[in-house]
This record gives sequence, C-alpha cells and structure tokens, in this order.
Amino acid sequence: MSDIHNDTRLTSTEREAVQGVVDRALRASQNDDRTGIAAAIVCGEWILEIAENEVNTFGDPTKHAEMVVIAAVTEKLDRKELSDCTLISSLQPCEMCLSAMRFAGIKRVIYCAQQANVAGKYFVFPDLKIEDFERAGEAFEYIGGVSEKEVIHLYAAGDE
Amino acid sequence: MSDIHNDTRLTSTEREAVQGVVDRALRASQNDDRTGIAAAIVCGEWILEIAENEVNTFGDPTKHAEMVVIAAVTEKLDRKELSDCTLISSLQPCEMCLSAMRFAGIKRVIYCAQQANVAGKYFVFPDLKIEDFERAGEAFEYIGGVSEKEVIHLYAAGDE
Repeated sequence: MSDIHNDTRLTSTEREAVQGVVDRALRASQNDDRTGIAAAIVCGEWILEIAENEVNTFGDPTKHAEMVVIAAVTEKLDRKELSDCTLISSLQPCEMCLSAMRFAGIKRVIYCAQQANVAGKYFVFPDLKIEDFERAGEAFEYIGGVSEKEVIHLYAAGDE
Repeated sequence: MSDIHNDTRLTSTEREAVQGVVDRALRASQNDDRTGIAAAIVCGEWILEIAENEVNTFGDPTKHAEMVVIAAVTEKLDRKELSDCTLISSLQPCEMCLSAMRFAGIKRVIYCAQQANVAGKYFVFPDLKIEDFERAGEAFEYIGGVSEKEVIHLYAAGDE
C-alpha cells in the first residue's frame, strides 16, 4: 500500500487524483507515441479531468500535461477562473505551467517527482525554484514529493 | 513615421513584424469579442505568423498571443524547435510565455509595452522581472519598449 493513503495533508479526492496521475503517467510511458507525464484538476470531491503531456503528439512545446488539463477544465466548466481547484501533477510543474496555474487562479498544487531529483530538461530557468515563485507573487500552497518513488524512474534521467 | 524604422537593433523583417503586431493589436482592441494583444514569429526574412490573444475567445487562460503563435508555427514548420526564430509581442511576455519561448528554444524576444509601464494583471509573479529570468537560465536577448507609445494606451490601465 502506497504512503499516499496516509498523507493527511491531502483530501481523499486529492489522494485519489495523485494515484490517477501516477497510473496515467506510467501507462503513457509504456507507449512510444506518448509521454509519461500526467496532471489532474480536482474541485472539492470531484476529479474534473486527468490529462497527459501532448508535446510529442502534436509537436507543440506548450502542450505540457498541466496546460492540457487547465485548457480542458476551463472549457468543461465554461469559466477561466479555477480558484476553487487543486492542480496535481506527476512531475513538479515547470515555470510555464506554474504561471498558467496562477493565471487560472489555482492556489494549491500537489506533485510527485521534485525538481531536485529529476533531469534539468524539465525546467528552463533552473536558477529559479518554486520557492522563488512562491515569494514573488500572491500566495499559493504546494506539496511536493507525494508518491515520488512510484514515478521517479521516469524523470530522474529525463526519459519522458 | 515611427521610431521603429530607425531602430538598427532590429532586422528589417523584425521591424515589419513589430508594425504588424501593433496593427493587429490595435485592430483587435476595437472589437468587443477580441483582445488587443498580438505576437509574431520571425525566421530570417520571413514573418511566419501573427496571432492574437485568444483567452476570451476560448475562455482559456493559457491562450496568450505568444502561446498561440508558438503553437501555430511549430505546427506549420512541423518541428518544436524554433531556435532560429525571434518572438515579437505588443506587450512584454509574461512568465508563462517567456517559459514557453525557452522550451521552444527561442533566444531573441522583442516587445513594445514594458512591464514597468503596464497594469499588474499581465504578470502573475510581479517580483520576478525579465532580468531575473535572463539570469536564471541559458542566455536570451530581449529588446523592450519598441513602438511602445503606439500601444501603451491599451495596457497602461489594463484595458486589454
């Protein structure tokens, strides 16, 4: 049984969503045409959407899993404000995705693999850490490293 | 005649693209359904694409003009690497767009209205400036404030 089930920092729906993105990332990583990075958006007791990285699918460098899931949920809810939502990702959100999350008003982010433990290619301004972003704008909350051991092999050497 | 025609820091195609994004932004701003922010991508002597902000069109907070133009050009060229391109925007790229630009390998960015002169809403980590991003990763070049006076009225109070 994974540690995630005992992590009281997360709601039960958030824990379920973490397991969902882990499963989706692992499944995608086994397919040559897909990329094993997944993200979800939770609102209260609902997992609104789970999406995966589509950079290689569409050859579009902006299609990170977090961007895809934000676009999908804003379309589904027909509103661009997601301040009541939690973003969950199998990999620490990069600078682009953190910023997109803030534009959507999302104030809570939970992720598995942490920047310090993964390949550099997932970040483009490596001297800016999530702590710098946290200090540089309106407050947001982040919980990193949940279920990290289940996915770290995907990202440690930058395989995905 | 605008100052832009005498700005030797820009290539003639880049100058033409600046005028193109200014015109597109001004035109879009006159339409209730559109947003007066535009961006272009230049490759050598070619303006590959000019796009505008589609956040309100699609209710999707990730659809900044720069994101739209990067997605369009990577699709058009069928490659996600744009290191031979210049990104041009009518408004200083926010943190999300700067990061997307770096994922695409773009190393040169030119913009009109500068962060210091526009409403805060266009940036989500206001204590991080473009200089911080420049110092925090691989080098890129930026030229801000070109033709600023032609568009600053759109952004000074956050109208667009």
